[in-house]
Amino acid sequence: MKNFDIDTKKVARELVNFISEGVSLKGFKKVMLGLSGGLDSTTVAYLAKKALGKDNVIGVLMPYGRLSQEALRDAKKIERILKIKTFHVNISPMVNAYFKKIKSADKIRRGNKMARERMSILYDLSKKHNALVIGTSNRTEILLGYGTIHGDCACAINPVGGLYKTQLRALAKSIGVPSYIIDKAPSADLWSGQTDEDELGYAYKDIDKLLFYMVDKRLIDKELLKKGFDRKFILHIRKKIRENRFKSQPPLIAKEI
Amino acid sequence: MKNFDIDTKKVARELVNFISEGVSLKGFKKVMLGLSGGLDSTTVAYLAKKALGKDNVIGVLMPYGRLSQEALRDAKKIERILKIKTFHVNISPMVNAYFKKIKSADKIRRGNKMARERMSILYDLSKKHNALVIGTSNRTEILLGYGTIHGDCACAINPVGGLYKTQLRALAKSIGVPSYIIDKAPSADLWSGQTDEDELGYAYKDIDKLLFYMVDKRLIDKELLKKGFDRKFILHIRKKIRENRFKSQPPLIAKEI
Repeated sequence: MKNFDIDTKKVARELVNFISEGVSLKGFKKVMLGLSGGLDSTTVAYLAKKALGKDNVIGVLMPYGRLSQEALRDAKKIERILKIKTFHVNISPMVNAYFKKIKSADKIRRGNKMARERMSILYDLSKKHNALVIGTSNRTEILLGYGTIHGDCACAINPVGGLYKTQLRALAKSIGVPSYIIDKAPSADLWSGQTDEDELGYAYKDIDKLLFYMVDKRLIDKELLKKGFDRKFILHIRKKIRENRFKSQPPLIAKEI
Repeated sequence: MKNFDIDTKKVARELVNFISEGVSLKGFKKVMLGLSGGLDSTTVAYLAKKALGKDNVIGVLMPYGRLSQEALRDAKKIERILKIKTFHVNISPMVNAYFKKIKSADKIRRGNKMARERMSILYDLSKKHNALVIGTSNRTEILLGYGTIHGDCACAINPVGGLYKTQLRALAKSIGVPSYIIDKAPSADLWSGQTDEDELGYAYKDIDKLLFYMVDKRLIDKELLKKGFDRKFILHIRKKIRENRFKSQPPLIAKEI
């Protein structure tokens, strides 16, 4: 990545091509994705519709009961705008069945179980409808490991994994994603009132800038400090990257016998 | 792989080392695995106990209701022999909650949902107990794609992924796995009476030999025919490998922007 500021028109064109080529390369015509009402999945749905046409994009709305009614309302608006085929599956019966005997489970465990239930449903329906699961994790999330392994990280193809959240937001604006999606606080909606930035401890615009210089430009600490980044912030982000790197690693398999 | 027949003592030693080194390399002391009562998971449990000691291996028994009582009985016997810590979770409430509204779902969909539910539980419990999920897929299954992506294929480390089923059986015998585990017909136990060999259409001993010559020795069809393999068999197995290759592929991510 040469520059942090992207040419949104050019990137949109490239990602639309990436989707149509990638999907056909894998022998498919259709894609399926979870529609959460958030920025990432909405943007991917817009790109996929441009690449494959509305009949080849299937959205799945998977709310956890009445949690995050606002997100669900937004997802339904997007469903109406894009006119793609959708399915609605409430995940609470499955998730609650598991935690019935584990009352003490904390919200992280509950959130991971929800993310994996959604993956399981997406993979089930995608097989039935002969569609490829298209992922929506952005580069910020992937680097920080802010996602559930075999949950929301699971996909066959991901057009936005190379874009930082801030870049994705700029792209979304340029391809016509509605402002009520773009302007709301990003949230994984795993519990009421959750926001990504509260949980990550910093704002996306700062995290993304730091990641860009640290990872893409390979600046060392001295240079990052000179750019004005706080020492505590630098250490915190580097620790997160290291601790979560395993999420992108394939399994270690004993091969030589 | 040089020879199909393995030196079981040597391989056992190597895999025990692989587990202890791999687990500590990933920053862990404990492993967790699903105990199905089958050959693969039993063998991995034996190897892991040798590598890490009984206090560092956790087994999870995850029956689907009263399906496969025999497998469950065998898993419980192994639990008693190895004296490792175990958990029991019946997966039917979660799986049935999903299919309540999809009565028409076929057994493949049900089987995949079960495999993913087990993954989800293993990953949940492994996080709680600070253990690494150790996989049990063998080389035959991996090559033929006879497994569920983000289901039983999911793991952080897998000591037996380089061994064909036939080789794994020889290894199991040499490390003392009981004969009632070794001699029974391999089954994924996803429905009553299921056996791998019925489903695959051929016996493991024939499949494994063919895979060895086709994949490891890179023989071409003419040579395989000369070795006595049937043309239909060769084509069938090659098709399976091609069709299921995607299961081992990492997601295609658009990286350059």
